[in-house]
Amino acid sequence: MSDFAIGVDIGGTNTKFGIVDKHGKILSQDRMLTNEAEGVQGFVDELYEKLTPLIEKAGGIEKFAGIGVGAPNGNYYSGTIEYAANLKWRGIIPFAKITSDKFSLPVKLTNDANAAAMGEMKYGCAKGMKHFITITLGTGVGSGIVIDGKIVLGHDGFAGELGHTIIRPGGRLHAGTGIRGSLESYASATGVRETAIELLTKNPKEESLLRDYSINDLITSKTVYDCAVKGDNIANEVFNFTGQILGEALANFVLFSSPEAIVLFGGLTKAGDLIMHPTRQAMEASLIQIFKNKVKLIFSQLNEADAAILGASALIWDN
Amino acid sequence: MSDFAIGVDIGGTNTKFGIVDKHGKILSQDRMLTNEAEGVQGFVDELYEKLTPLIEKAGGIEKFAGIGVGAPNGNYYSGTIEYAANLKWRGIIPFAKITSDKFSLPVKLTNDANAAAMGEMKYGCAKGMKHFITITLGTGVGSGIVIDGKIVLGHDGFAGELGHTIIRPGGRLHAGTGIRGSLESYASATGVRETAIELLTKNPKEESLLRDYSINDLITSKTVYDCAVKGDNIANEVFNFTGQILGEALANFVLFSSPEAIVLFGGLTKAGDLIMHPTRQAMEASLIQIFKNKVKLIFSQLNEADAAILGASALIWDN
Repeated sequence: MSDFAIGVDIGGTNTKFGIVDKHGKILSQDRMLTNEAEGVQGFVDELYEKLTPLIEKAGGIEKFAGIGVGAPNGNYYSGTIEYAANLKWRGIIPFAKITSDKFSLPVKLTNDANAAAMGEMKYGCAKGMKHFITITLGTGVGSGIVIDGKIVLGHDGFAGELGHTIIRPGGRLHAGTGIRGSLESYASATGVRETAIELLTKNPKEESLLRDYSINDLITSKTVYDCAVKGDNIANEVFNFTGQILGEALANFVLFSSPEAIVLFGGLTKAGDLIMHPTRQAMEASLIQIFKNKVKLIFSQLNEADAAILGASALIWDN
Repeated sequence: MSDFAIGVDIGGTNTKFGIVDKHGKILSQDRMLTNEAEGVQGFVDELYEKLTPLIEKAGGIEKFAGIGVGAPNGNYYSGTIEYAANLKWRGIIPFAKITSDKFSLPVKLTNDANAAAMGEMKYGCAKGMKHFITITLGTGVGSGIVIDGKIVLGHDGFAGELGHTIIRPGGRLHAGTGIRGSLESYASATGVRETAIELLTKNPKEESLLRDYSINDLITSKTVYDCAVKGDNIANEVFNFTGQILGEALANFVLFSSPEAIVLFGGLTKAGDLIMHPTRQAMEASLIQIFKNKVKLIFSQLNEADAAILGASALIWDN
């Protein structure tokens, strides 16, 4: 009998993992530093060491159906992590195979944004939906697309990179890709910070609470939010500008797959209505008639710390 | 035994129909004016009258598996044609039901761009592909998206309206939708004509063969092409500009579904390399590394007059 799955979320800094039952209850969880171990084999060995007591406590390995992994540039088809910019491991890493060999369990792997979408579908606000899109507004902008109840992977496993769609041709340079005007360069935490600095610089005479913070390091999406709720004009303008661009991008995504809902996730959603209102307004204004007032735009209700583990574990219960 | 299907393509002006076998051979075909008959029932009656001799010649109605229909704003789920701007029929028309009652055959209906994608998958250059996108560059810009071997319909049947994605925010006004900067306002026959007029007006002193044509009616995508092959600078610039915008839009679509190929179809493709080169260049320049030099960008090889009938008939053989 398979009662449990293991969910592993590999991030640039931390790797979180946990034991999850079929109902999405996390029985136990822990974390480790991603880039501390020597190479990927060292990482998997450490993961094994840390998970073994949790597995034993849950009744032993025979109670487990498998391990689901969410990782940057994770490829579901091949089980590999390919050229992930934030990880120390270079090239194409056969992560699913290495992990499966170590644990003697089936391993399924996908990219972190797809894992988040799986979590929303199984346990979150997209439960029961067959067509939706998850957008992660964090340090970067990630996306997971579900059509007919399945994650869209594309012919090579790399579909769903909506953060890199161009929404302001010739616009802001994205340092990581060298491309101008992509959604990620505006609607990420990094983008919000840049927008704030731009607005402060362009309006040198306008008073703003943001001027009390150092441009070098203290202006962040968090401080912009803090100033905005205090009624600061420039800080509010930052969210209006960000929402305008995000809303236009979402409208484009709606035209592609006509989803029932778009689920927003990640740090920026803490801004609540400050980001939701301008985003919704811009999305609706950019849609043709047959799509207007149809698409639910909602914040994820999953606890962010749990969602990644839940989503990864859900890969095992899929099909 | 079901040997044949009927394919019907309803256009704003003409409706084409034909008898098609399972191998995609059109045995016979004919056409009629779409908006001549009185109402939709009159239209279906006339279609029945015209098709009956073709059906008899093929061996009678018992040899037929069904009727596939491609129509503007056709909805696969409901079999209805909804608020089609180019048709005389107002509101929501239960076209599949009316036609099925008249012919006593199963009827499947989808929008015209999806039917074109079906045709490419069954009989065209996307044969055997599970992930591709068809873009129709005609009077407007239509699209059909195939993921995992299935047309993407979305939660309501209206997915795949990529011509209305915004690619130049705040840009050219699209008269039909009131939205600014959509792909259709640039990469359609209408868009090419507008771009030509804009360039002629902006550069009043630059000589151009296009100035021999009347701006009121004679500057068309066809005359722009004729001038471009004669080496006319402005006419060539029209295609470069159109290809730039189209290529950027295609890159955005690639990021969504990571297709194996994008198939271009419709009148503008007659410009051949004049449109293909700048489009491909702009698409590649806009893609992040993992997608570069991967996506085939190809012209449809199907005869345009046949493709719509073939695609519609293919709905019957699907599954």
